[in-house]
Amino acid sequence: MGLHECAAWIRENDSFLLLTHRRPDGDTLGSAAALCHALKRLGKQAWLYRNPEVTERYEPFVASYYAPADFRPAYFIALDIADVTMLPKGFDGSVDLVLDHHGSNSQFGLMNEVRPEAAACGELILDLIPLLCGNLEKEEADLLYVAVSTDTGCFCYGNTTADTFRAAAELYEAGADNRRLNKLLFRTSSRPRLMLEGMIYTGLRSARDGAVNVAVVTLDMMSRAGATEDDCDDIASLAGRVAGNRVSVTVREMEPGRCKVSLRTDGVLDASAACARFGGGGHRMAAGCELSATPEKTVTQMLSVIDELWG
Amino acid sequence: MGLHECAAWIRENDSFLLLTHRRPDGDTLGSAAALCHALKRLGKQAWLYRNPEVTERYEPFVASYYAPADFRPAYFIALDIADVTMLPKGFDGSVDLVLDHHGSNSQFGLMNEVRPEAAACGELILDLIPLLCGNLEKEEADLLYVAVSTDTGCFCYGNTTADTFRAAAELYEAGADNRRLNKLLFRTSSRPRLMLEGMIYTGLRSARDGAVNVAVVTLDMMSRAGATEDDCDDIASLAGRVAGNRVSVTVREMEPGRCKVSLRTDGVLDASAACARFGGGGHRMAAGCELSATPEKTVTQMLSVIDELWG
Repeated sequence: MGLHECAAWIRENDSFLLLTHRRPDGDTLGSAAALCHALKRLGKQAWLYRNPEVTERYEPFVASYYAPADFRPAYFIALDIADVTMLPKGFDGSVDLVLDHHGSNSQFGLMNEVRPEAAACGELILDLIPLLCGNLEKEEADLLYVAVSTDTGCFCYGNTTADTFRAAAELYEAGADNRRLNKLLFRTSSRPRLMLEGMIYTGLRSARDGAVNVAVVTLDMMSRAGATEDDCDDIASLAGRVAGNRVSVTVREMEPGRCKVSLRTDGVLDASAACARFGGGGHRMAAGCELSATPEKTVTQMLSVIDELWG
Repeated sequence: MGLHECAAWIRENDSFLLLTHRRPDGDTLGSAAALCHALKRLGKQAWLYRNPEVTERYEPFVASYYAPADFRPAYFIALDIADVTMLPKGFDGSVDLVLDHHGSNSQFGLMNEVRPEAAACGELILDLIPLLCGNLEKEEADLLYVAVSTDTGCFCYGNTTADTFRAAAELYEAGADNRRLNKLLFRTSSRPRLMLEGMIYTGLRSARDGAVNVAVVTLDMMSRAGATEDDCDDIASLAGRVAGNRVSVTVREMEPGRCKVSLRTDGVLDASAACARFGGGGHRMAAGCELSATPEKTVTQMLSVIDELWG
């Protein structure tokens, strides 16, 4: 279906519960809250499902949209959710309308509007809201800026296109406070996260003249940093920051004697083949595996396989 | 004067040397190299002044545009240079055309085109090149993307506006390889820089329940990290990343017994007043000073003044 049909269906109905995905990010939450705000402007009853996994960072953006306990919705709308397995914890109903941008979307809704070329689901909602309300309000622009900017790493990731930049221009003109939001989303980290990053950087090891870089995160480091899972977002990208890096390995001790490995390459060797040696898998440029070994032994084993597969 | 007059003057003349500013950044270099490429397309003789302070990061973008030793230019064009004091080392001629975006520009050229509302000088060159050549080529788009993205911290700094996003969309469509360039410019750091960041993060101190954060960079840390001045870019922003920060202090030991202080606040106290106590100055939100003291003593003295001035 198209966006116009989505808008028509929404206008004809009432009483919506908006769903966000597991381990919710800025895109699912910002998109859902922005649409919720617009639906309320239309005079609809609309609320967000209280996703139990919302982190501290995003809670302030969505808390005022959570459905009251006695809300009995007639319809369910899923935002940025690629598949039923990604529906939020505790929800087991069926979905009426799916709004998403994942190419892999399994079209699990009664109606589905999926735009795989969009960098963020927020781009789609940015087009939908004016069809519903005729304009975009500042609160919606802020929420959609959260959606688009977080899904593109502040316009830095490879998914950023001319359309993304144009969406950002539109949001800025509708009042999105990019200065305040960027400070909060991209230039602020928890103290434990900075401590952990610091330990990772000072402990970086390298091989092959710096082309291979290894980051290790032990349970002891996590505890000394006071870090939790929330502080480990995108931690597997840090080793790859070193100038000249071609292959990065991140080893995380999950419990004594068990380590998770994330392997990323520029293509010089097949990451999934390397991880398959230990029962793991993934893609050529990024793969993972688990070893029953100490962090030290895990590093040694990974380096040895990398040496063997190096082209 | 306006951009059309600039374009007309350039078309009527020939033999240009393009100047970049001291401690050149991506904006001055990207703008100059892009304009140089366009001038060559017009059949003009045009080269970049060989700025002796170009860093390793930017050298590959500009090296092919450096003037040969025997080039005798008829005209000089300054890009992104706010004042004669910022003309590149070794240059002492007069400037014919100034193209810039600094509100403080002293209009030191015979002709001056300054656009203070632009986030980067590159935005101005993006408008100038099509007036000269009718279109924008991929090489120019890449160079202007370097200009605009670095001056806005990849669209994250507060100077980013709707016009900046629109410029980025235009550059993307003209072929700018934002994926490759972002990786190089924003997701890559030298090993010494990462090591130094790591030491700074693990050594962060705080006061007033985390509202005050202090980063210390000693000569010993610099030496252990193998870091040089090139690795210290924007180092004074790191302490301010901590969630809940209101006042950040960065103390750099310049030589034994002498420290430079950078103080940044959200306005809770006047940074320039605090720094004035030690003969320094600046603005309310950002100021600096130098103390003849060890890093330890410098931290103690700064914390004591902060305590005294806290609102």
